[in-house]
Amino acid sequence: MFEFELQAQSGQARAGVFHTPHGPIPTPVFAPVGTQATVKAMQPRELYELGTTLILANTYHLYLRPGDALIARLGGLHRFMAWERPILTDSGGFQVFSLGALRRIDDDGVTFRSHLDGSVHRLTPEKSIQIQHNLGADVIMCFDECPKPNEREVVRAACERTHAWALRCLEEHARSGDPERQALFGIVQGGIFPDLRAASVRFLTDLNFAGYAIGGLAVGETKREMLATLDYTVPMLPADRPRYLMGVGSPEDLVNGVARGVDIFDCVLPTRMARHGAALTRRGRLNMRNLAHAEDSAPLEAGCTCYTCTHFSRAYLRHLVKADELLGHQLLTLHNLHLLLTLMREMRAAILNGTFEAYAADFLAAYCSTSEEASAPLIL
Amino acid sequence: MFEFELQAQSGQARAGVFHTPHGPIPTPVFAPVGTQATVKAMQPRELYELGTTLILANTYHLYLRPGDALIARLGGLHRFMAWERPILTDSGGFQVFSLGALRRIDDDGVTFRSHLDGSVHRLTPEKSIQIQHNLGADVIMCFDECPKPNEREVVRAACERTHAWALRCLEEHARSGDPERQALFGIVQGGIFPDLRAASVRFLTDLNFAGYAIGGLAVGETKREMLATLDYTVPMLPADRPRYLMGVGSPEDLVNGVARGVDIFDCVLPTRMARHGAALTRRGRLNMRNLAHAEDSAPLEAGCTCYTCTHFSRAYLRHLVKADELLGHQLLTLHNLHLLLTLMREMRAAILNGTFEAYAADFLAAYCSTSEEASAPLIL
Repeated sequence: MFEFELQAQSGQARAGVFHTPHGPIPTPVFAPVGTQATVKAMQPRELYELGTTLILANTYHLYLRPGDALIARLGGLHRFMAWERPILTDSGGFQVFSLGALRRIDDDGVTFRSHLDGSVHRLTPEKSIQIQHNLGADVIMCFDECPKPNEREVVRAACERTHAWALRCLEEHARSGDPERQALFGIVQGGIFPDLRAASVRFLTDLNFAGYAIGGLAVGETKREMLATLDYTVPMLPADRPRYLMGVGSPEDLVNGVARGVDIFDCVLPTRMARHGAALTRRGRLNMRNLAHAEDSAPLEAGCTCYTCTHFSRAYLRHLVKADELLGHQLLTLHNLHLLLTLMREMRAAILNGTFEAYAADFLAAYCSTSEEASAPLIL
Repeated sequence: MFEFELQAQSGQARAGVFHTPHGPIPTPVFAPVGTQATVKAMQPRELYELGTTLILANTYHLYLRPGDALIARLGGLHRFMAWERPILTDSGGFQVFSLGALRRIDDDGVTFRSHLDGSVHRLTPEKSIQIQHNLGADVIMCFDECPKPNEREVVRAACERTHAWALRCLEEHARSGDPERQALFGIVQGGIFPDLRAASVRFLTDLNFAGYAIGGLAVGETKREMLATLDYTVPMLPADRPRYLMGVGSPEDLVNGVARGVDIFDCVLPTRMARHGAALTRRGRLNMRNLAHAEDSAPLEAGCTCYTCTHFSRAYLRHLVKADELLGHQLLTLHNLHLLLTLMREMRAAILNGTFEAYAADFLAAYCSTSEEASAPLIL
């Protein structure tokens, strides 16, 4: 179980299959985020229809509500949310560190107040792993410290803590978990500093995790810094383990990440943008509140095969967004996820065909050519 | 077109088929409400799957946003909302009268302020019909005055105005409409007064409408008054035209309405209750926020074949409702509509079988036996 089968490589870009107890995950893959045991506004049958093979759920949120013990008593997260395919849970670390004044970190763990009711809780590496055992996701993550990536001394200290915690997570998983049922991934830290990244990779690969995340990115550094970090970090990781870039999911970042050898991505972007009335297309983002769409009988994207584009006009979608109708959230979420999941499948096919470089260049050229909003520079 | 084919009768209860340009409507029928050109939280394909054959849309809301002229330019309401089956639009009258201090009525029409931006508008019988022509629904309604039903003098005056306006609606429809494409229904007023109801029926049936609504009910009278009014009003209506009870849709009201010869119903109840976290079942209503459901692995309703009940537990639905997740609205809406549409199909089958009386008595007995909330008396 949890074998990563590498099928083809095109430059650094890789196509493979990651085998899990809930089925195979063809990579590269994008995982929609189901923070509270639901990908917002999506039914599982719709996610299946879109070809979703992996979703992410949040340990912090589910620990607080409805509680991981309750989910365990009801048969685990897959059964609870009626999702039969693979799930990945984060460690809760990122969420508790994001609480700012509501949390206090020490070498043993983090004490924090719930954003729901102010109640006091404590997460340690052991506790995070125990919660993730209760949830029962196929892939679980080490509890790590994720600092801002640019201050060397802060990043160095976070690396040390992350490494000590990784060891404790591995020990707890060996003690109380089932490595045949749940794969534990290590998280590489080191900010934008090549020597710290190299040291973090060395420490974690010595521990022999089932997969590796590149952590501490998409948290304040520039896009060039993020991609440069991937350029030198990813090649240091073992080729026979999946590589996961956490919290990244714009179309341009997915293309650039795959080009640098990343296999797994997750991000709230497609679902969150939809709830804010924005659509992702192959020619950039559309703000559906814009008057320009008021009488436009065209679909969001010509040629798109999703339910939204094959049935509804931009004019109708604009009406739903302006009228704050739930169907607007649903239809935009469906389209945005369809685009990202299709993009991942197309990249995978191109890697298998040996045409990835041309595919990626063409996609990025079209994507930045006519975006309604200014795009960040789209490096390949 | 617009033939009403009476297939069977069981006491006053009728089974039939109402033929429209967008297909046949087997009756009795419940129409989910799509106020703003969307049944809240439902995709058209989901409504088809539930067996929905008729939906209602609101003239007032669509006139204000996105505008009926815009919808006409985009090919009409069916195409705008991608709904290929029959639609009924109300006249806008009920909504503008509900604006209270924001509207002023005279014999020619109603001047009102938009609830969206305070802008001033005017609806007359002619204008209402013109808007409904632009929307293009299969069934359109006369612009009427709907007063509180208990004050005789107020009700009598409203009847006079409603009758004068009915004539003007009919003339406008003959002048600028297409009676082969859109059927105009008259609305019987008269509150809880048998002689006023009789006079209203006489006036309107002389005008020979394609169908008749029983208006002015479910607006403040008791349930017994409402049913008594149906008892003497419905039999006065012509047998060869469909009869529509506006704004009524609780399970017990549907059974009692069908038993009294009503063919068509609409109501926001199933969709609105869902958004407030409540489920309709054959044993009464469930408030999904209740702690009692927190660890309940059972579905909302044992034996229910809807997507919600065949996939999700009460515990999960409670979690979604407590966490304010959109999927909770979707899954509860789907179940609530499934129950009402199934109830209508079962009543229709029972009328065709000659077993309606027993079916209705059994349904009501089960419905009021174990309701989580106190139910109103369930008369048959």
